[in-house]
Order: sequence, then structure tokens, then C-alpha cells
Amino acid sequence: MPIYKAPVEDTLFILNDVLGIERYNNIPGFSDVTPDMLDAIVGEAAKLAEEVLFPLNLSGDQEGCVRHPDGSVTTPKGFKEAYELYRESGWLGLAAPEEFGGQGLPYTLHTAIGEYMSSANMSLTMYPGLTQGAIAAIIEHGTDEQRATYLPKMIAGEWTGTMNLTEPHCGTDLGLLRSKAVPQPDGSYKISGQKIFISAGEHDMADNIIHLVLARIEGAPEGTKGISLFIVPKFIVEADGTPGTRNGATCGAIEHKMGIHGNSTCVMNYDDATGYLIGTANRGLNAMFVMMNEARLGVGLQGLSVSEIAYQNAVAYARERLQGRSLSGIKAPDKKADPLIVHPDIRRVLMTIRAFNEASRAFTLWTALKSDVAHRSQDEAERQTADDLLGLVTPILKGVLTDRGFDHAVMAQQVFGGHGYIEEHGMSQYVRDARIAMIYEGANGIQALDLVGRKLGLNGGRAVMALFKEIGDFCDENRSDDQMTAYTKALKKSLNDLQSASMWFMSNAVAKPDNAGAGSTDYMHLSGLVVLGYMWAKMAKTAQGLLASGAGDREDFLKNKLVTATFFMDRILPETALRRSRIEAGSDTLMALDAAAF
Amino acid sequence: MPIYKAPVEDTLFILNDVLGIERYNNIPGFSDVTPDMLDAIVGEAAKLAEEVLFPLNLSGDQEGCVRHPDGSVTTPKGFKEAYELYRESGWLGLAAPEEFGGQGLPYTLHTAIGEYMSSANMSLTMYPGLTQGAIAAIIEHGTDEQRATYLPKMIAGEWTGTMNLTEPHCGTDLGLLRSKAVPQPDGSYKISGQKIFISAGEHDMADNIIHLVLARIEGAPEGTKGISLFIVPKFIVEADGTPGTRNGATCGAIEHKMGIHGNSTCVMNYDDATGYLIGTANRGLNAMFVMMNEARLGVGLQGLSVSEIAYQNAVAYARERLQGRSLSGIKAPDKKADPLIVHPDIRRVLMTIRAFNEASRAFTLWTALKSDVAHRSQDEAERQTADDLLGLVTPILKGVLTDRGFDHAVMAQQVFGGHGYIEEHGMSQYVRDARIAMIYEGANGIQALDLVGRKLGLNGGRAVMALFKEIGDFCDENRSDDQMTAYTKALKKSLNDLQSASMWFMSNAVAKPDNAGAGSTDYMHLSGLVVLGYMWAKMAKTAQGLLASGAGDREDFLKNKLVTATFFMDRILPETALRRSRIEAGSDTLMALDAAAF
Repeated sequence: MPIYKAPVEDTLFILNDVLGIERYNNIPGFSDVTPDMLDAIVGEAAKLAEEVLFPLNLSGDQEGCVRHPDGSVTTPKGFKEAYELYRESGWLGLAAPEEFGGQGLPYTLHTAIGEYMSSANMSLTMYPGLTQGAIAAIIEHGTDEQRATYLPKMIAGEWTGTMNLTEPHCGTDLGLLRSKAVPQPDGSYKISGQKIFISAGEHDMADNIIHLVLARIEGAPEGTKGISLFIVPKFIVEADGTPGTRNGATCGAIEHKMGIHGNSTCVMNYDDATGYLIGTANRGLNAMFVMMNEARLGVGLQGLSVSEIAYQNAVAYARERLQGRSLSGIKAPDKKADPLIVHPDIRRVLMTIRAFNEASRAFTLWTALKSDVAHRSQDEAERQTADDLLGLVTPILKGVLTDRGFDHAVMAQQVFGGHGYIEEHGMSQYVRDARIAMIYEGANGIQALDLVGRKLGLNGGRAVMALFKEIGDFCDENRSDDQMTAYTKALKKSLNDLQSASMWFMSNAVAKPDNAGAGSTDYMHLSGLVVLGYMWAKMAKTAQGLLASGAGDREDFLKNKLVTATFFMDRILPETALRRSRIEAGSDTLMALDAAAF
Repeated sequence: MPIYKAPVEDTLFILNDVLGIERYNNIPGFSDVTPDMLDAIVGEAAKLAEEVLFPLNLSGDQEGCVRHPDGSVTTPKGFKEAYELYRESGWLGLAAPEEFGGQGLPYTLHTAIGEYMSSANMSLTMYPGLTQGAIAAIIEHGTDEQRATYLPKMIAGEWTGTMNLTEPHCGTDLGLLRSKAVPQPDGSYKISGQKIFISAGEHDMADNIIHLVLARIEGAPEGTKGISLFIVPKFIVEADGTPGTRNGATCGAIEHKMGIHGNSTCVMNYDDATGYLIGTANRGLNAMFVMMNEARLGVGLQGLSVSEIAYQNAVAYARERLQGRSLSGIKAPDKKADPLIVHPDIRRVLMTIRAFNEASRAFTLWTALKSDVAHRSQDEAERQTADDLLGLVTPILKGVLTDRGFDHAVMAQQVFGGHGYIEEHGMSQYVRDARIAMIYEGANGIQALDLVGRKLGLNGGRAVMALFKEIGDFCDENRSDDQMTAYTKALKKSLNDLQSASMWFMSNAVAKPDNAGAGSTDYMHLSGLVVLGYMWAKMAKTAQGLLASGAGDREDFLKNKLVTATFFMDRILPETALRRSRIEAGSDTLMALDAAAF
């Protein structure tokens, strides 16, 4: 049977020791987070994830969601009750504004516990997850009335939210979308059209579902400049704030998906449904991107989450399963074979995943902290710097953590041999679930293009220069520290690959944009490797500091950090040179063939 | 709807032009293969694959196999009839000995058409595929009576075969197996035990199923030296050669698998089943390896097969799906967006898969030709050299083509965005089907260990030295050819990485075997890259020769070969340096952590 244990010690090491979260107590929400409170919150979240969400993960996958002839949808057994517990414990509103019933705590904390929830049950966690994105859009672009009407219920989790972008003929290129909105005398709109792949589009877990829908107001310009965003509630909200008339927003079908079977992914039909414009007409993409950016961080986190649970199960299996003998001599003489974990090739798999997971955890929390600073700091310059970095690393985090997360689920599955291929051990589910994270909220190729085509050159490259400087400074500052030399040397080398690749784009992609497209995915991964390498260097520095000052019962934990950091530098980080060489190979051989020749 | 077209032109280019199959006409079976006959056979196979097997692929996945309460199994609709056509056309016996009803044609040809069959329907092709392995074992180790009893029916496809190795507690480490065989007065044995993951274990497509079962004769030594191989027919064969009494070999359950749903993968229960020893008692692993080596080449081929069909569907989608505009200016001004195929990042995916597929096709046929020479040549020295290389490259072919085949199915699925994640387009099926090929017939980590731990040092490294020499000589011979310089330079560089990594093992892995295990998977991929690079260099040389002598209507085909060869050398082959650096990083960081620390 699958297992899961939230990596609480590691989370706390990163928050307290590596990132020094207590230094941010001048930022609203942070002063409430005393070390004791942090322990308590993280511990409670771990408990919910392990004991409530996780036991429903495999059964939810096997059972799936069922659409009934009347269009209603039943989620897998136990999901409704588990969601009820989740929402009653206030996890949905943890970082939401207090004025709408949230707790106003750091988004960083929300991210820390979000990892556990998605590890334990990705499908179930998506229901509140999509709600978060809708909340963010309404906070940022809603009118006071819209905020008052929807936010308290959504933050309490009584109502959930969705994002409706994709139509059968377009997903990435939203300029092509056809759903239309017809203005009504009362200021509302009638929305018509079909949306597909709508996560949590219809279900039995909430009293109302607040759909945020992209559509084109009649007569609006073609392309992306004629798209508006609408609030389309499943039940139109009465004057007293309660759900009233059933709206013309119905689930036409549940998609037959490879994974995340516990999430109700719907074809949504809008048939003269009543909708309310949110934000400015024809500027819907702007409002949508508020949801999208938040959602991208959440999806990147899913990559880590699945990688972590897959890792834990592979470790457990590798410790138990007896097969073969160690190359360096029998290790379990009392048994007929040694456990898998004695074999170097198995350890290669486990160490690779581990090294990514621990650095990815640091990366997600470091990024979440930038988000908190960008949104809450009183200091404008600080806000700006954080916002620059947040924008830059969002596509990296989404693309790299989900690509690798999937790879790791596959590697962990491989440890099980044939047992990984049957559904009973859950390893197939992790692979099938992880696969979607590479696709939704902008396929990873789009993340790479966003990074190279938009984020890199923004404000004259201000963000990327700041990142290079931060990492370069770290290397320089630790140059004279003998214990750090091995780490900083490897990191500096990789940073050099990244800087050279960036220069290459500047010299070669302006006149010939295909050179940017041809190298974009490699650049995204190159950037990701450097950032993860930076996280490892920071963690190694912290671990050494703590070890020097007497680590107490964390000594093994900290020493293992140093081993894993070395593994990352020796075995993983050198990939940057390959990525760079591919980028610098340019686009010529890619573009040479006629489309008909493929 | 998914599409498939057998790559006949490419197969013929490799067989006729690159490998020069007509030069082998002194080998039995080859002289029958005139160019016209080759065309006809390959064309007929393509037709069967495209028109009969392929239309049942998606429906077979969705329907799956059904086990009935009496233990009988029904395969998906249409499978029985399609198999009937397959077997009546004589495909099963194409390369089998004429004395048992086969056609005695080259195994190379069997491999060429085998690619098409597995592309079109991997699950269905596994039924005759497993039979091939059983046939090979009976030819090699069976008594005259056993051969006469089983081979004609199996080669005609009237009876199918299976391989029964894995038990719940052991797969890789067969020394642990517990199934037992009790000798009977008539010379037969009573076999008891449970086997799992038995492909084609029970089904409705043949009159009899010939199970080859590993078991331990009562009182035999422990470990691998006490294992024997038995023939256990589903129906005991009467004196007149017809199936008689139902044997105690029954399907207890069908496994719930991630993919290959059309193949009936069974838990097989042997309950005092009558079995007949094949080969020498306690030497069952030897006999089994005859099946296994043949099966490994077949599984490697599956990697290519799935990669090819995934590629073809991604290409079709990329040509049709309109999304976004080209970075270098609008390409389809009459449409609202350009097709995906204008985007460099999409082309990166397509070219990567294409470059592997074409080289992998050459690699599989080159290897199959070695197999023919090894088994059929009249010249002992020639046989020996071919057998050396066959043994060396078998684990490389199996491991690398299936690892990459899976990666490519995933990459091709990504081209479809969200549409790749739903089952209707078939892309999810390719991913789920391809996944098993990395696991069965020896998980890829075991292939890597076989390569590094066994094949590399065999006969003082004779095989690997021969391979290095063959590739090195090719580079040297073409050094003065200006048109070949770019290819041979890249190939030589990679060969140097491979040679250095091999030397590193010699210096570091003898005293410390964990260094071999730690680098084994990287070494397997490093070797694979070099061999595929060699295939590309050979194909480039051939293409240039043909272009120089007037290529006629193949000019575009040949020029595209050169572009794809360049792409491979520029973008893919440099990975060898990374693989080498990982190998040379050794095992220390892998083995440092205590098992409990993971």
C-alpha cells in the first residue's frame, strides 16, 4: 500500500534556517508567524494531508468522477467529507485578506502546506486550488460589490471557483476564442459558448461554483484585444447573498483523462448564462493573468508534490524488496537477498529525485517569499525587485518542476519493476497525475517562450541581471570559505553557462527570432538548474553554519544535506553545459525541413 | 483520430542502401530475398499493420481483456480475427526454420516488419511475439520429439507461447523463485506455483497455449543453479498431436495495468500441472536466456515502434492545429493562426524524435543482421564476431530504445497540449503502452548492469574493442571526405567519451564494483548515443553517395537525411560528455547515506 509522510523537518529547515523567515516580520502577516505557530500550522497541515487526504488518493483515482444524466457530478467516495474538513480548518483562507474572512498569513506558508496537500491527493487539492486563482482575480479586478458578494464565501470554501479559458479549437492562442457575451439592459451579459478541460467545473462539494469565463463581447475586436472576463455563477446569487436561480452553465461531459481521475474535468456549456464583467471590457487577458500567475506557481508545486510522494514510496519499496546481492559484498546475510537500496543504480535514482525535491522545495518557498514581498512590502524598491524576480522565475518554476516531477515519478515507478506498472502500488497514478502538470496553465513550451520571449528582455533585462548578480555575489562572498569551494565552483561554472546562453540570445535571436524559440526549452531548464544549484549552495552554507555551531539532534540531517548537495553539483548540475551547447546550435537544422517532409 | 503509415521507404533505404543486404546472399535464407521480393514482403506487412492491426489499437486499449468466472479470457473485439489474418499470412513463421513449416527468411526481415506490427498495435503483436521467444527456446533446447510436437503448430500460429518467470516476490532475482516441479514415474513433472505478469497467459485466439515455466525440481539446489525450464501446455497434447486434457494451468486474474490493455497479462496458477523438462535439469536459466535475448531485441523494437507512431501523430497534429503566429513572420496569412509546425520549439520535439527513430531503425536492422550472421553464417570467424557484437548491443538496444521511446511518446503527447491528456487522440495510450517496455524482459537498470558487469569484460573486452574499432575505422576512412568531416568529427568526439568512460571503469570499478553500478545506466545511454551516431554517419555517407550518383525522385528524401544527421550530431550527440562526466563522478555520494536516511 502507498505511504506518505509530510517532510515537515525539511520545510522548517528551509523556512527558518535557510530563508530566515523571522527576518521578514515587518511585512504584514509575518509577525503573527512565531516559530511555535509555524510548527503548529505546518504540523496540523501535515496531519490533514497524511490522515485525511492521502487515504483517498488511490481510491479516488480508481473510482473517478461520475456525471449523471441531469448534468450533476459526483466526486469519489470520501472527497466531499475530506474537503469539508479541509475548508473547516481554514486552509483555503490561510493567506487570504482578513477583511474577507481570511487569516492574512504569508503566501509562503500557504505554499509550504500546499506541497503536502498535493502530494497527499493532487486531484482533491485541485478543487480548492482553482478557487484560489479565482479569488485572486476577484480581489485584484472585482468591484467592491463583486468582492463582497463572492470573496467571503469562496475564502470560506463554501463556494469553489474555476477558470474557463480553453475552447475546443484554442488553448494557448486565446485570441482565437469564440465564446460570446451579449450585453443586457441590467448591465449583465448573456454568455454562450463551449469550454473544455475545465477543472472542478461541476461537483458535489460546494453550494455554488463561481466560474470565471473568458468571452468576447459582441462587436469586440478580433484577437486577444477583444477578450473580456466574466463571473458566471452556477447559481445566480440572490440579493441576500444566497445561491438562487440555476444559471445556464452546465457540465456536458467529463473528459476521459490519463490521470487526475478524482478531479472533475468538464466540458462546460454556457447557454445564455448570466455573467458579470470583471475588470475592464476587452482587457480580460490581464485579469486572467492574475489567476494564471498564481496558478502557475501552484502547478509547479504539484510537480514537486508528486515527485516527493513517488520518491517516498520508491524508498520504502527499495528498503523492503529483496532482490540480488550488493556488488560490494552481501549486506543482509540473514536474508536470501539484499534489499534493493544496496544497489548503486537504485541509489542513483533515489539520490537524483531527492536532490531535486529538496532544492525544489527551497525554490518554491524562496519564490513564495518573493511573492509575499512583492505584494505586501511597504518598501517600493523592495517590492519592485521581488516582483521582477517573481515574474522571471514563475515560468522556470512551473516548467522545470513539472518536467522533472514527471520524470521522477517515472524513475520512482521503475524502482518497482513490474509492480510499478500495475495500479495497486499507486506508482502508475503518480506518473499519470504528474503528466498533466506539464500541460495545463500553459504547456511547458509556452513557459519557455514566456521566459525567453518576454521575461528575459523586460525592462532591459533588469530581472535576469538581478538574478545573475545575486547568485554571482553568493559565489564571490563564499570564495574564501574552504568548505564552500566545491559548491560555489560548480555553481559559478553553471552560472557562466547561463550567462553565455543569455548573451548568445542577445547576439543571435534579435535578428532571427527562431533562434530564441529553438533554444527556449533548453534555456528554461538551464535556468532551472542554476537556480536549483543556487538553492543547494545556500542550503549547504546554512547546514555548515549550523553544524559548526553545534547541531544537536539535527547533525545527521545536516550532514545528509551536504552529501546531497555534493551529489547535485557532481551529477546533475553539469547538465547546464549540454543545455548551453544545444541553445548555441541555433535553429537552422530545426527549420530546414519542409513541413510536408516530416 | 490517430493515424499510422508504415515507414517503408526508410526501411528499404536502410536494408538496401545502408546495410547492403544483397551482399549477404551467401547466408541461408538471404538468397531468396530479391529486391522485388523485399518490396513485396515489406509492402504486404505494411498493409496488414495499417489496415488490420492499427484500427484495433485504440479500441483494444479502451476495451481491454476480460476474464470470465471460469478463468477463460476474451480479448478485445476484432483481435481474434486480426490475429487469424496475421497468422494465415505466415508472418509468424517468416524467419522460422523450413523443416518446421517456417519460411526460413532472414531475421532481419522479421525485424523490419516487426516494427510496423508493434507500431500499429503493440498489445496484439505481443501474442505472436511471445510465441517467437518460446519457439526459439524449443528449437535450441527441445528434444526432437518436443520440436515435432510443438514447433509446427506454434510456427503456424495455431498455438501461442508464453514465458513464465516472475513470481510475486521475485522477478529480477530468479534465484529466489519457489515454483516447484515434482518428478513423475512417466518422466513428466507436476508443476505447482504462482507466476505473475504473464503476457498472453490466457486468451481466446489459439487452440492451445504452450507455457514455458521456470520451476525448481524437488531437492534441487537453492539459487539460480537449481532452476529448470518446463513446457506446460494449456491442453496436454494427445498422441495424435491434438490438444487433449485441460492442464492445471489457469489464469487467476488479469493484472490491472497502466497500459497494453489489449494484451492479456495474467496471474497464472499452476496446480499440479503436467510439465515436461526442456533442456538440462537445473540449467533452466540457460534455456530461458535463449528466449530472453530474442525477446530483448523485440522489446527494444517496441520502443522504436511506439516512438514512430507517436511521432507520426504529433506531426499530423502539428500540421493541422492552428495556434499562434510564427516568430519569423506570419506563415498562413489566409488563416487566423499558423499551424503549430512553424514554431521552433515544436520542431525541436519533432526533429528530436525523428532523428532517434531513423537511427534506431538502422540500429535494429544492423543488429538483426548481426543475429542472422551469428546464427546462419558458414564462416565461423564471421559468426563469432557477429555474436560478440550481438551480445554487446542487445542490452543497449533494449535499454536505450525503450527509455527514449517512452520519452518520445511523452514529447509527442506534449505537442497536443490538453488534447494529448485525454484518451481520444491515442497519445496517452502510446505513453502508457511504451512505459512497460522499460520494465519487462529485464528492467533497464538490469540491462545496464548486464552491459557493464558482464558484456563489457567478456573475453577480455573483445566485443567492445571490435565495436570501437569499427566506429573508429569508419571515422578514419572518411577523414579526408570534406562532406563527412562534420559528422565524423562529432562521432569521434563521442566515441572518445565512450572509450574514456570504459577506461575509467577498468581503472576504478574492479577494486570498487559500486563504481560500475553507479555509472551503468549512464554508460548504457552513452553507448547507445555513440551507436546511433554511428548509424547516422553511415546513413549520411550513403545518402551523399546516392546524391552524387543522381538520386532521382529520392533527392528530397536523401537531403532530409543529411539535415537530420546534422541535427543529431549538433543537438543530441553532445549528451555523451554529460554521461561521461556522471560516470566519472563515481559512486561515493550515492552510497554515503544510510539506508534509513532516505
